[in-house]
Amino acid sequence: MKPFYEKTIHTKPIFQGRMISLQVDEVELPNGQTSTREVVKHPGAVAVMPFTTDGRMVVVRQFRKPLEKEIYEIPAGKLEKGEDPASCALRELEEETGFAAESLQLVTSFYTSPGFADELLYIFEATGLTQGKVHPDEDEFVEAQLISLEEGLELMAAEQIHDAKTVFALMYWQNKRLKAQLGK
Amino acid sequence: MKPFYEKTIHTKPIFQGRMISLQVDEVELPNGQTSTREVVKHPGAVAVMPFTTDGRMVVVRQFRKPLEKEIYEIPAGKLEKGEDPASCALRELEEETGFAAESLQLVTSFYTSPGFADELLYIFEATGLTQGKVHPDEDEFVEAQLISLEEGLELMAAEQIHDAKTVFALMYWQNKRLKAQLGK
Repeated sequence: MKPFYEKTIHTKPIFQGRMISLQVDEVELPNGQTSTREVVKHPGAVAVMPFTTDGRMVVVRQFRKPLEKEIYEIPAGKLEKGEDPASCALRELEEETGFAAESLQLVTSFYTSPGFADELLYIFEATGLTQGKVHPDEDEFVEAQLISLEEGLELMAAEQIHDAKTVFALMYWQNKRLKAQLGK
Repeated sequence: MKPFYEKTIHTKPIFQGRMISLQVDEVELPNGQTSTREVVKHPGAVAVMPFTTDGRMVVVRQFRKPLEKEIYEIPAGKLEKGEDPASCALRELEEETGFAAESLQLVTSFYTSPGFADELLYIFEATGLTQGKVHPDEDEFVEAQLISLEEGLELMAAEQIHDAKTVFALMYWQNKRLKAQLGK
């Protein structure tokens, strides 16, 4: 049963870039009328919440051109064609922070902005970290940092943590902490 | 101090649509080399977590063209030019669900996908709900539903709740519940 389904009548390709592409779909609405949908195609991405044994999380500080500001985020990156999300997570973690992880678990996945983009983000939890050497992509400038949950919540209040995946990470972390306090 | 700042050398406009626009920025990297950044411009959006007095939350089911599937989301919509986020939140809540809210509080804001888009999403909590009449936009087909936290977590596990803002809402709600159990 798909009562709200919108059938594509025509797809107009607009742009094909390095990271995203854009198309405008003409659709038939459930009431028979037509409308247009602007759709950004994205290869999908992964993000990692890397937890240390002393109860801290690794974040990376980087400049984000669309925001024109630097923010702290959990390590993340886009999927290469055909790449397994777990392999991508370990690769991005090591490239951006130098940390290798012994254990990696998928926590959840979500679409970042379903109104206009098909980007699906997989979120992993990494533990058993060992420090190695950082080697980001050549056009990527990042700096790793370890934060406590309290520091994370302060950075969030100051809008220096200000993106969906890292805000999710803090909520998830806080949940874990509260569950542990309740003995759950 | 902006050690990772990327200076724009040139902006190439690609597309101007109903909801988003797209540009490609040529930037100077911190190491002096140049690169390009694909940037989707978005007017910003609001989302509302509407909580009823009997401990449920209002979600709306709708078809999302970029995902080619229906999902359950908290009520949300894009900001009109110059519109105040709180007014927009009350408007979208009423249009999509028919509920009016006595009390509205800003909980947080985050960028949905800072790698390629400037969409900033404000998330509100609404309480003191009274049921009125639904009147969505003419090309919008939505159906409101009340869910418990447990039902929400089941929908998330089944990927029927599958977007950043609604996953955030569930984490936030769970946090509140756990804090109440701890007497915090």
